[in-house]
Amino acid sequence: MLNQKRINLVLKRMADFGYDHFLITEPETIDYLIGYLNYPHERTYVMALSQEGDHRLFFNQLFYVDEDLGLPITWFSDADDSLALIASYLKDAKHVGVDKNMPARYLLPLMDKTSATYEVGSACVDLVRGVKDVHEQELMIKASEINDQAMAQMKDLLSTGQYSEKEMDPQLLAIYKSYGATDHSFEPIVGYGENGANPHHMNDGTMLKEGDSIIVDMGCVYEGYCSDMTRTFFYKKVSDKQKEVYNLVLKAQLAAQAAIKPGVRLADIDRIARDIITEGGYGPQFNHRLGHFIGRLCHEAGEVNATSDIIAEEGMIFSIEPGVYLPHEFGVRIEDLVLVTKDGVKILNHYPKDLQVLG
Amino acid sequence: MLNQKRINLVLKRMADFGYDHFLITEPETIDYLIGYLNYPHERTYVMALSQEGDHRLFFNQLFYVDEDLGLPITWFSDADDSLALIASYLKDAKHVGVDKNMPARYLLPLMDKTSATYEVGSACVDLVRGVKDVHEQELMIKASEINDQAMAQMKDLLSTGQYSEKEMDPQLLAIYKSYGATDHSFEPIVGYGENGANPHHMNDGTMLKEGDSIIVDMGCVYEGYCSDMTRTFFYKKVSDKQKEVYNLVLKAQLAAQAAIKPGVRLADIDRIARDIITEGGYGPQFNHRLGHFIGRLCHEAGEVNATSDIIAEEGMIFSIEPGVYLPHEFGVRIEDLVLVTKDGVKILNHYPKDLQVLG
Repeated sequence: MLNQKRINLVLKRMADFGYDHFLITEPETIDYLIGYLNYPHERTYVMALSQEGDHRLFFNQLFYVDEDLGLPITWFSDADDSLALIASYLKDAKHVGVDKNMPARYLLPLMDKTSATYEVGSACVDLVRGVKDVHEQELMIKASEINDQAMAQMKDLLSTGQYSEKEMDPQLLAIYKSYGATDHSFEPIVGYGENGANPHHMNDGTMLKEGDSIIVDMGCVYEGYCSDMTRTFFYKKVSDKQKEVYNLVLKAQLAAQAAIKPGVRLADIDRIARDIITEGGYGPQFNHRLGHFIGRLCHEAGEVNATSDIIAEEGMIFSIEPGVYLPHEFGVRIEDLVLVTKDGVKILNHYPKDLQVLG
Repeated sequence: MLNQKRINLVLKRMADFGYDHFLITEPETIDYLIGYLNYPHERTYVMALSQEGDHRLFFNQLFYVDEDLGLPITWFSDADDSLALIASYLKDAKHVGVDKNMPARYLLPLMDKTSATYEVGSACVDLVRGVKDVHEQELMIKASEINDQAMAQMKDLLSTGQYSEKEMDPQLLAIYKSYGATDHSFEPIVGYGENGANPHHMNDGTMLKEGDSIIVDMGCVYEGYCSDMTRTFFYKKVSDKQKEVYNLVLKAQLAAQAAIKPGVRLADIDRIARDIITEGGYGPQFNHRLGHFIGRLCHEAGEVNATSDIIAEEGMIFSIEPGVYLPHEFGVRIEDLVLVTKDGVKILNHYPKDLQVLG
């Protein structure tokens, strides 16, 4: 059923941006606004919001819905020209905001068939989704609690040294399910040694060897909401260089987290962590943003990076995850989720961050 | 490594469409052309083909690649304006084809920063990908063999009547893995009774009851290639109306498959099945296309429907899957994958299609 409170927040943002209409294609956003989740694959699937109040869904009849969703639905079949229907709806539109991920196969025909101008307008809804209400916060706190408990079990399994990277994934899924989570929130990364130097390494058959760093980046889905945490362990021994890098990354992470409160620019949070790592001599090896928003999806719109213009606001949840990657040597990343509170920050992960040598 | 043969086929199609450049964003298509698969999530990830031969990759440095991929890579970081780099590459472009799924957050800035015209040009590569080479055919034949074997085991499990719809999914995954498949090719549909009347039903806790139809739509991934098959069973007893619908759907499916050979329009194949079901009195209840292309993804571009302008060509693989859905009663769908051969068709699924009453 249509969530009028959320719709009103989006309409207000639309007015700020000057959009008379806003077209949404992301299934999770549609679900967020009307409580109906469906993955349409290649079929057209659009929710339209209008400043005039003529909100509307454009659904393929394959996705029939018995319940009343609280707004009119224009149904079409595989044989119909669904985009012509949307174009007709937009015949008086002037300035239309569209979802950042609206595919070209929708956008180019609409631009062709209407006289409106189009702009990426996801911020209208992303900024609303970025601030979690109390119920959402509770689910995400629980998802992170499960993640903490699962990390403890992962540590025990890793300590045996008998599993390859890719053998850890199904075990982790079973652990998550035992705690009531339904799935991974993303394909977990378990990177041994130099594999950990690739922040997006795909787990393979690599086995642990003495002196390896172990990056474990993992998250689960609990009642539709995601967690995401990274810890870095060492296997059997740790070198002075590994210790130095670990402590530097941890220092950066703690400093960034301590600076979070309402009103602070997220770009400044990124700078705090980046300055510490740069002063430590590893600036170029911290080659990604400090963090990302998270909620229904593990990566939601909104970044903690040098160019972000987002100001921290009570209810926002994002990751803080500095890392240093030394190709062909090792990598270190430490990540928590944080919730901006009324006057500061609540860290959602509690699994310890002191340096641990396993095995 | 760049597959020059496939690139040349795409360049030829680009010339037919009048594109001087073609921008690809779909990870599986990039993999198809250069043998490198990566999922970039929200990061910019583009492969550009040029009639002048200046092909290029635009990759975030997070996705560093050690191997030589056979074409230059423009690297950028999270802090760079990646789309400005692509726009600069396109400064002399006139008519650019883009991937059907290129997101608005790429497309609108590129349209803004360049003087080229843009068009959905996926057909350039989709028509190439749609015709499978011998190696691809072998993998897909094997993936369908596994699917046949798994369906036999699913039938045995369903016959016990003791599993809810959603309990079948993990069991199926275990079966697939025991045969060497790596994953489902899509979330399997197990629809009991009236749930089967929703072609995209999401499996829930429903249990079997006497007289239910059981729709099982499932597929696996074998060495990166997909299978997809549907069978409809009945539990304990079958009504005359269920028999009538089942036999009608089967008749339509067999007739459509028998008509496939090189040179035939896929729209005509759709018509053959649809006419039979319409003559049987259930035309409106066959509410989707007859079939879809398949390969690396379970649903690839290319449809078997009333408006398709595709002509069957040796090496094409697609599904033939008529269905009839009676809301609040039951559904029937029967689906095989077929391979167009030099002078006819090879059906890739061999699991029996005679009406089976289980339990």
